[in-house]
This record gives sequence, C-alpha cells and structure tokens, in this order.
Amino acid sequence: MRPQIVIFGDSITEQSFRSGGWGAALADNYSRKADIVLRGYGGYNTRWALFLLHHLFPLGSAAPPVAATVFFGANDAALSGRTSERQHVPIEEYKENLRKIVHHLKECSPAMLVVLITPPPIDEEGRMAYARSLYGDKAMELPERTNEVTGVYATRCVELAKELGLPSINLWSKMQETEGWQKKFLSDGLHLTPEGNAVVHQEVARVFNEAGLSAPEMPSEVPHHSEIDGKDPQKAFQLQCS
Amino acid sequence: MRPQIVIFGDSITEQSFRSGGWGAALADNYSRKADIVLRGYGGYNTRWALFLLHHLFPLGSAAPPVAATVFFGANDAALSGRTSERQHVPIEEYKENLRKIVHHLKECSPAMLVVLITPPPIDEEGRMAYARSLYGDKAMELPERTNEVTGVYATRCVELAKELGLPSINLWSKMQETEGWQKKFLSDGLHLTPEGNAVVHQEVARVFNEAGLSAPEMPSEVPHHSEIDGKDPQKAFQLQCS
Repeated sequence: MRPQIVIFGDSITEQSFRSGGWGAALADNYSRKADIVLRGYGGYNTRWALFLLHHLFPLGSAAPPVAATVFFGANDAALSGRTSERQHVPIEEYKENLRKIVHHLKECSPAMLVVLITPPPIDEEGRMAYARSLYGDKAMELPERTNEVTGVYATRCVELAKELGLPSINLWSKMQETEGWQKKFLSDGLHLTPEGNAVVHQEVARVFNEAGLSAPEMPSEVPHHSEIDGKDPQKAFQLQCS
Repeated sequence: MRPQIVIFGDSITEQSFRSGGWGAALADNYSRKADIVLRGYGGYNTRWALFLLHHLFPLGSAAPPVAATVFFGANDAALSGRTSERQHVPIEEYKENLRKIVHHLKECSPAMLVVLITPPPIDEEGRMAYARSLYGDKAMELPERTNEVTGVYATRCVELAKELGLPSINLWSKMQETEGWQKKFLSDGLHLTPEGNAVVHQEVARVFNEAGLSAPEMPSEVPHHSEIDGKDPQKAFQLQCS
C-alpha cells in the first residue's frame, strides 16, 4: 500500500488541483511515492467539518494516512450579522473544533503528521470588487470578512498547534510579508492565485521535509526506468516489488 | 469508500499533475466525487508495465478502481538501433502487452471502465532540438522516435480497443488535426504543453461522460454547503453521510 497524505479543508483545498494549484503540485512532487488525497469542501467551516470526520477518517483503518493538512478558518471567520453569517463560527469554538479534528486524526493514527494551516489574509477591497462583479449595486456595503478578524482566527490556529506540539503554517502572516500580497496572492480577496498557491505549496513542502516526509527521501515503489536492465528486466522488479 | 479512477501510464501520465496537467484537471473535476490515482512511470514501456500489475492492481481487492486509463506506447515506439533502443518494444508485443494489461484489469473487476490512449504524435524536429539542447554536438544525428512509427503503435492500440470492445482515444490522430500541433501541443517533440494536456483532458472527460462516469452525475459524498441549515446542520449530514 502506498502512503496517503490527505489534504482536508475548505474551498482553498478543494480548488487546489486547478492549474497552478498547491495540491496538484504536491501530487507531482510525490508522484511515485505517496498519494495526495483531496478532501476539500468549499464553504465548509470547522463546525460542519466535524460531521465528516468518521466518514473521511474511519477509526481502525488498516492503512491510515501518514500525514494530513487541516486548512480551515476562512469561513469560520465570516462575520456575524453580514452576508456570509451562515458560515460564521465563534473564535473559541473554532479553536475547539480544530482540537477535535486533531484529536480524531491522532486517534486514527498516533503517528500521523498533522499540519494546521491558518486561513490566508483577506483583501477587503478585493472582496468588495468581487461582490460588485456578481451583484452590481445590490452588493453588500459592508465586508463579510475582514483581514483583522481573520488574523485573530489565524492566531488561535497557531496557538493550538503550539499547545498540541504540531507544526503549523501561518499563511495569514506569511503572505502579508510580501508587498502587493492583496492582488499577487488573492484572486477575489480570499481565494488564491497561482502565486498564492505557490506560497502554500512551498510552505507545506517545507514542513513535510522538516518532519522527515520529504518526497526524494521516501522509498520508491517501483524501479526508475534507468535501473531496469533491458535484457533482464525482471531483476530490477524482484528487488523492489516482491 | 470513494470511487477510484486510476491513470496508469508512462511519463505523460506521471507529469500530468504539473501546472496545466490533464491528471490534475481530472482531479479537479471529480474533487468531491472520485479520487484520481496517479500511477505514471516515466520511461516505462508496456513490457515493464506488466511487472507492476499485481503490485498496483491486486486481485481480490474489496474496492477495485471504477475506471482506469492505460496510456503507453511512446516508449515502446522508440526505434531499435537508435539512442532509446533500451525502451523499444516490437509492435506485435506492444499490442499483446496491452491485451495482458486489460485482461488483468478486467480480472480485478469486470465492471472497470478501461480506456486505452495511444501515444501522442512525435515532432521529430522538436526531439532533435531537445537532444541538441542537452548534448550539443554529441546529440544523435538520427531520430530515436519517428512520427510514422509511433502512428503504427497508435493504430495497434485502437485496433485492440475495438477487438476488446473498449473505448479508446487516438491522440496521435486527434492532435494532428490541429495546425501547428508540433509546437502547440508538444514541449520537446514528445511531452505535452498545457495545450496538449488540455486535449488529453478533454478527450478523457468526453469518454468518461459517454460511459456514464461524468463527474456532475456521480453521487456527492457529502452535502454542498448551501444545503446545510446553519441552525440544524446535523440534518443535512444524516441524509447523506449515515
């Protein structure tokens, strides 16, 4: 059985196999080593994600994933009283839901590498422009997400990772280190451009490498074609595939 | 268990999760419906692929793939007596090896949709330019693959699909319908540009749709976020996830 790495999250995970996406880039890195399993659910917050845990990560599996990224918060941080209120989850509940997710994953497999990823920053102007492009004059006047509030969610996510001794990626901070992050990394003020996807890919690859899960160092499932003797191919396969 | 669609082939499959790749595009289409499982092995021909069958597609699996693409021939068609001779597989053996692959997959699961894909056409000038870029004056003077010979392999592949009643994609013919296919679809005379990847994606999606495996028509694993009642989320999950 080939190792599985599950990427679990909201739309930013669901869309990660589009052109230039971070999930596809990981799948390319691990193409002959591990499967990148896409479990992204657009619009989901951590409260709704809890309902999926037993379905997606059944306890007692003979071959649980070796690693998982948990990438929620962009919807939890939608503001109460605004147009995306349905998705809002209070900050303390967000943290506790993340804790429950981690707890479940570790119950699946104590050895699983669990990486928490914070939501990206919000470009409020970009969100407004996107709303106007969809709804014209009927677009909301007030933002449904603010960068400041999303930053509080990011802080809680990183805080929890520290409490639990897990690696985390503070995407909210990381992206804002680059000038012009608003348009460079975000396509509609929230979702990622190819450049924004490259930041996630680079960070996830870095964390996996640091945790000893680097693709080049993982054992190869089958021989490289250059190792196959054209006159006696069986030899190479007996070594690795028996 | 979520349905699995395996893409099995050589480097053109292995590289299909790079930016703009056809495998990643399929994974995006099926993101909440099925897993696209990458089993691409650069440099492999059908003779070497046979050694992988029991390893990649064990008989007696409780959840065999629902579909598989089989995409070999670009290496089999490397010419005997030229620089890629190691990879050459005689034309009749190529066809018989493909038959063995199909036979194994159908033994895994008689219901599995097996789609045969021919190698793409060869831009001999592009291959030469690529060799010169790598080896300078030491590059081969004679092509290691020709478009004509690869076309014979493509014909045998389609012929076998007809004999076995399987769908097939004649990529060799399809790509040559477009003027300027040499540079438009091929990056080094053999591997695919993003536009070339788009042709494969479009053809595979068409065949899957015709066979009743279209992503929009497959059942959804979990509710869309718009179906979740913010005040009573459990309801939506009880319907679909129990």
